[in-house]
Amino acid sequence: MIKTPYLLFLGDAPDQLAAKVAQGIKDWRPDNAVGQFRMEGCNADVGLTDMTLEEAKAAGAKTLVIGVANRGGMISQAWKKVLVTALEEGFDLASGLHNLLRDEEDLVAVAKACGRELHDVRIPDVDYPIANGVKRTGKRCLAVGTDCSVGKMYTSLAMDKEMKARGLNSNFRATGQTGILITGNGVPLDAVIADFMAGAVEWLTPDNDADHWDHIEGQGSLFHVSYSGVTMALIHGGQPDALILAHEPTREHMRGLPGYDLPTLQALRDTALNLARVANPDCQVVGISVNTSAWDEATAEAYLAKVEAEMGLPAVDPFRQGAARLVDALLAL
Amino acid sequence: MIKTPYLLFLGDAPDQLAAKVAQGIKDWRPDNAVGQFRMEGCNADVGLTDMTLEEAKAAGAKTLVIGVANRGGMISQAWKKVLVTALEEGFDLASGLHNLLRDEEDLVAVAKACGRELHDVRIPDVDYPIANGVKRTGKRCLAVGTDCSVGKMYTSLAMDKEMKARGLNSNFRATGQTGILITGNGVPLDAVIADFMAGAVEWLTPDNDADHWDHIEGQGSLFHVSYSGVTMALIHGGQPDALILAHEPTREHMRGLPGYDLPTLQALRDTALNLARVANPDCQVVGISVNTSAWDEATAEAYLAKVEAEMGLPAVDPFRQGAARLVDALLAL
Repeated sequence: MIKTPYLLFLGDAPDQLAAKVAQGIKDWRPDNAVGQFRMEGCNADVGLTDMTLEEAKAAGAKTLVIGVANRGGMISQAWKKVLVTALEEGFDLASGLHNLLRDEEDLVAVAKACGRELHDVRIPDVDYPIANGVKRTGKRCLAVGTDCSVGKMYTSLAMDKEMKARGLNSNFRATGQTGILITGNGVPLDAVIADFMAGAVEWLTPDNDADHWDHIEGQGSLFHVSYSGVTMALIHGGQPDALILAHEPTREHMRGLPGYDLPTLQALRDTALNLARVANPDCQVVGISVNTSAWDEATAEAYLAKVEAEMGLPAVDPFRQGAARLVDALLAL
Repeated sequence: MIKTPYLLFLGDAPDQLAAKVAQGIKDWRPDNAVGQFRMEGCNADVGLTDMTLEEAKAAGAKTLVIGVANRGGMISQAWKKVLVTALEEGFDLASGLHNLLRDEEDLVAVAKACGRELHDVRIPDVDYPIANGVKRTGKRCLAVGTDCSVGKMYTSLAMDKEMKARGLNSNFRATGQTGILITGNGVPLDAVIADFMAGAVEWLTPDNDADHWDHIEGQGSLFHVSYSGVTMALIHGGQPDALILAHEPTREHMRGLPGYDLPTLQALRDTALNLARVANPDCQVVGISVNTSAWDEATAEAYLAKVEAEMGLPAVDPFRQGAARLVDALLAL
C-alpha cells in the first residue's frame, strides 16, 4: 500500500507521452495528487500545481511518485538529487520503472537512514496464496480483450468512476504497474510466479458486500500467445460475474505478433465465457468497449451501431461516450 | 543441464513412495543412473545396485540426485554428511526439494571450494524470453488433462519411449521437477514469472527436424482454477500439432477444489482445441489416455471401449496397454 496523497514527479520528461503514468493518476485519482514536480527542461504538464518538495509536504503529500518514463533505462544523477532530497524531507518513493529503486544503493541507504519506504510496483511484495476457488461474496467485472493494449484498464477505471458518481459501491482493482500507481495498491500480475497468479487475483478481490463491484483490470488476451496464461489466471482467479469485451478495430494483427489475426468479438465472447463459467457458472457478457480513437465521430458511431446490432449487447467507446451504458448493463444483471 | 549419469540418493526413505523421483528415473531413463545410495534405515529400493560414493564415481556417475522426499522439510545432518562428502569426491548435487540446496550455507561453501554445481530444479536458472509465437519446425504433442495429476507426464514419457523403441525421432520435454530430474533438463514452469511462461515453453521446444516429435509434459488443467494459466501457456507456447486428452475417471471433484466437477472429455476436447488453434490452426486431438489404476482389468477395458466409441478416438491406459496406439494416431496425422 503506497501512502497517498502523492507529489507527481515529472522529471525532465521529453514530451507529454513520457508522463502518461502521472497523467493517469491526474485523470483517474485527482484526489491522490497534491501537485506536480518538474525539473528544468521538462516538456510535460499534467495540469496540476507546480510545487517544490517543501510546498508539497506542507500540502500533505506522503509519497513522491515517479510518473514519467526515464531515458535510457537509467535513473540519472539529476533525478537522484531530487529523490534523495525527497527521502530526507520525509517522502516515500514509488516507481514503476524497469530499473528498480531498490537496486540503487544510495537510495536504499538514504531511505533506511530516514525510515522511508521505496515502492517498486513492478515487483510483488506479498507472498500470494495458491488459488482455492472458493466462491466469494460481492460482484466482480473483468474486461477481456481481443488483443493486448486495447483499452481494458481505461474501461474498468471508467466503469468504476461512473459507479462512484452514482453513489454505488465499487472499486478498481489494479493488476499492472500504471493501475497500481494510480490507485496506490494492486498486484503486478505479470511479475507473479506462475503457480500463484490465480491466487494473487483472489487475494486482490476478496469477499465484499453483496452490492459491491470490483472492476478488475485485465491483462493480455486469451488470443495473445505471449500472455494468454496471465489472462486465464484473471478469468479463473477473478471468478467474474460479468465480462466486458474490449476491442480496437483498426489493429492489423495481434500486438507484436505479425501473422496472428485478431479474433472476432463472437470468438472472444464464446471462448472467454466458456472458461469463465468454470469458476462462476452465472457469468455473463454484458457489454462491449471499443477504442475508436483512430476514427472520427461519425465512423465511430457507425461502427458501434453495427457491433451493437450484431452482438445484441451495448457497444460503447467509454472515452467518447462515458461508461454509463456499460454500468447500466452491469446493474441489470 | 544436469550432468549424467546419476547416483540416486534414497537417503533414509521411510517407504517406497518417498522415493518416487528415483523410481521415475529408474523406470524412464535407466541409462541415466549407475546405482542407488541408501542410508541406514532406508525402506525404499528402486532395484538398482547399491553403491558407495567411490563405487559410483568409478562407474562414471557425475551427479548425486536426491531422489527422495525429505522429512519435515529439512535437510538433516545425516543427509548433509553424505552430500558434503559427495561434493568433495567430485559429484554435483541435484534436488527437487522445496527447501533448496542453495540455501544451505555449508553445501554452498563446499561446492564452491570443490568447483561443483548445485542444481535446485524447482528454480529456473535461465532468463526465458517473452514468447514470439513464430511457427517452429518439427512436431509437438501435448497432453492436456481433465484435472491435475491424472497421468499427463506418464503419458508423454510412454509415448516418447514407444517412439524411441521404433527408432523414431522423439524427445520428452520436462516442465516439472520430477520430469527435469528424470531427463536432466527442462523448465520448472510453475516457478516461472507469469510474463515468461509461454516463452519458456518456446525455449524448451525449439525448431527441430521435420519428422521430430517433442512430447511436452503437461501441467495443471484448463479446468483447474488454481493452475489453468500454466496450462494455457503450455498450449500457446508449445503450439502443439497434436493433443492427447488425459483423464482419471474415479476423481470425485477437481483436485483440491471441492465443489468443482471434472469436465467431460468432450468439453476438454473442444476447449483445448479451440485455444490450441490460436497458435497452430492445424492442431488435432489424436487420442485419449485414461489412468485406470483404480480398476480391475475388465472394468478398465469396458470403460476404455465406451470412451473410444463415444469420442471416436483411440482410448488407452498407457500403463496397462502401452502407448503404441497413441503413437500410431500421432504418426497417422
